[in-house]
Amino acid sequence: MHPAARGLADDAAVLAFPLGADLVATHDMLAEGVHFTPKCPPDGIGWKLAAVNLSDLAAMGARPLGLLLGLGAGAGRGAAWAVEVARGVAHAAAAFAAPLLGGDTVRLPGASVLGLTALGFVPEGAALGRAGARPGDDLWVSGTIGDAGLGLEVALGRRSHDPVLLERYRRPMPRLALGLALRGLATACIDVSDGLLLDAARLAEASGVGLAIEEAALPLSDAARASGVTPAGLAAMGDDYELLFTAPTGQGAAVGTAARRAGVRIARIGQCLPEPGLILRDASGRPRPLPPRLGFQH
Amino acid sequence: MHPAARGLADDAAVLAFPLGADLVATHDMLAEGVHFTPKCPPDGIGWKLAAVNLSDLAAMGARPLGLLLGLGAGAGRGAAWAVEVARGVAHAAAAFAAPLLGGDTVRLPGASVLGLTALGFVPEGAALGRAGARPGDDLWVSGTIGDAGLGLEVALGRRSHDPVLLERYRRPMPRLALGLALRGLATACIDVSDGLLLDAARLAEASGVGLAIEEAALPLSDAARASGVTPAGLAAMGDDYELLFTAPTGQGAAVGTAARRAGVRIARIGQCLPEPGLILRDASGRPRPLPPRLGFQH
Repeated sequence: MHPAARGLADDAAVLAFPLGADLVATHDMLAEGVHFTPKCPPDGIGWKLAAVNLSDLAAMGARPLGLLLGLGAGAGRGAAWAVEVARGVAHAAAAFAAPLLGGDTVRLPGASVLGLTALGFVPEGAALGRAGARPGDDLWVSGTIGDAGLGLEVALGRRSHDPVLLERYRRPMPRLALGLALRGLATACIDVSDGLLLDAARLAEASGVGLAIEEAALPLSDAARASGVTPAGLAAMGDDYELLFTAPTGQGAAVGTAARRAGVRIARIGQCLPEPGLILRDASGRPRPLPPRLGFQH
Repeated sequence: MHPAARGLADDAAVLAFPLGADLVATHDMLAEGVHFTPKCPPDGIGWKLAAVNLSDLAAMGARPLGLLLGLGAGAGRGAAWAVEVARGVAHAAAAFAAPLLGGDTVRLPGASVLGLTALGFVPEGAALGRAGARPGDDLWVSGTIGDAGLGLEVALGRRSHDPVLLERYRRPMPRLALGLALRGLATACIDVSDGLLLDAARLAEASGVGLAIEEAALPLSDAARASGVTPAGLAAMGDDYELLFTAPTGQGAAVGTAARRAGVRIARIGQCLPEPGLILRDASGRPRPLPPRLGFQH
């Protein structure tokens, strides 16, 4: 246990804070029947809970300080289930150097509900945000898109078993190292949680720009290419937890270096436009119809 | 809305952090059917959620920085209910200068569940804790004890209506100003959330001391004195959210000054002993039997 948790003997965790840094804080929930099913392995739920919150820190360019866990174990969930959820959180905590500092556990009469607060820091004024993209900036994304959404279909029994896709859905990897490397380089950044197209629209709206996305440039795994789902359809699936970001065209080489330093593949998938709107273009530059739903809206 | 929330447009809140301070963080949950009933006014639930977490900051001597709210609205709860809960949180946020920085809202299939993270700071190394009491130290408590527990009985219809007691239960007032004033003065501190006797036992155990509590010194309101519940019974009720703390006997005058500065009444109710154990003494110094339950254990 982290020393800040003081053996959970105090009312709150206390931890040293880096000099001259800003605090970054986020809280996301996962609920049974909404974000996970009773059949999901509890350690995977715990991992995912930590990972989706750490992904929010990654999108801000923040380095994690620690986690606080609110664990509501529903009716019929024994102590073993709660321990497994906490173990999954602890695995992610160890993997991403974000110690579990404390929290609360309650027994609930109904469905299980989990909340997690992720705390991090950035040098003063250095946090990335959604609002800084400028017309002419390039649009980039890390990793591959749609695998986790296909993994959800596997989990729901709507697609034949594929352990790699399932793992992408159940065990997202927040791009913390990339977020750190993009500080001072990316003009805007968001994590792809609800679908690339939907999160791109959010970034564009916050920045007051438009976006043109090249369909052929979307980074797809072999499994996604073989899935029968169109690139636009894959870009409307959620749970990727990749970073979608913009940077001035002249910074392309620096962006590539940053990604290599972070050990992550990235792809340039489009460009920021002066006029609002989201355009998907085919290989010959013609606009393609957008899917009726740009992503998953809670 | 606080500027750190960035209009909730980003993935996380960003806020300036005081130079040379330690971060203090706590997360507590309130669940329908456990901590509140479907009949509780939602703005009161929101206030209480914020207050119980701020009370944890108070016990550490921390000044609030902000709050993150996890709002799970259960089946049958319309948007109006969630808005009222958030309004209650916002009222407490305003009353205690702890701005709402962000969070998450989900619709749940079962009962409602609320989680709240309170963030605060203390000068480096100045956090109060439970573990510093020394034999010979005086034991003090703020406010009056048992009123909130009686208010719960009013809320449950087990006691005749009393708006003052009900208000003490529904709208706890975290002793933040007192916590700040006790820094460098109290040797140990805990907030009374589960019953004075139980929380005293926790402080004693964490500090490795015993405690002798003078029954006649317990601060009771007129309503509590007239309630028919014994002082020991009142001291085993929960939800007071007063501060229970120890200080060297020689610091009695300084403790009194600190409490006056904070605008809070305090009472010296006992003393720390070298041997472990919790003793309740009557006016002639004889041990009184402890109630079978020292407080409310979740």
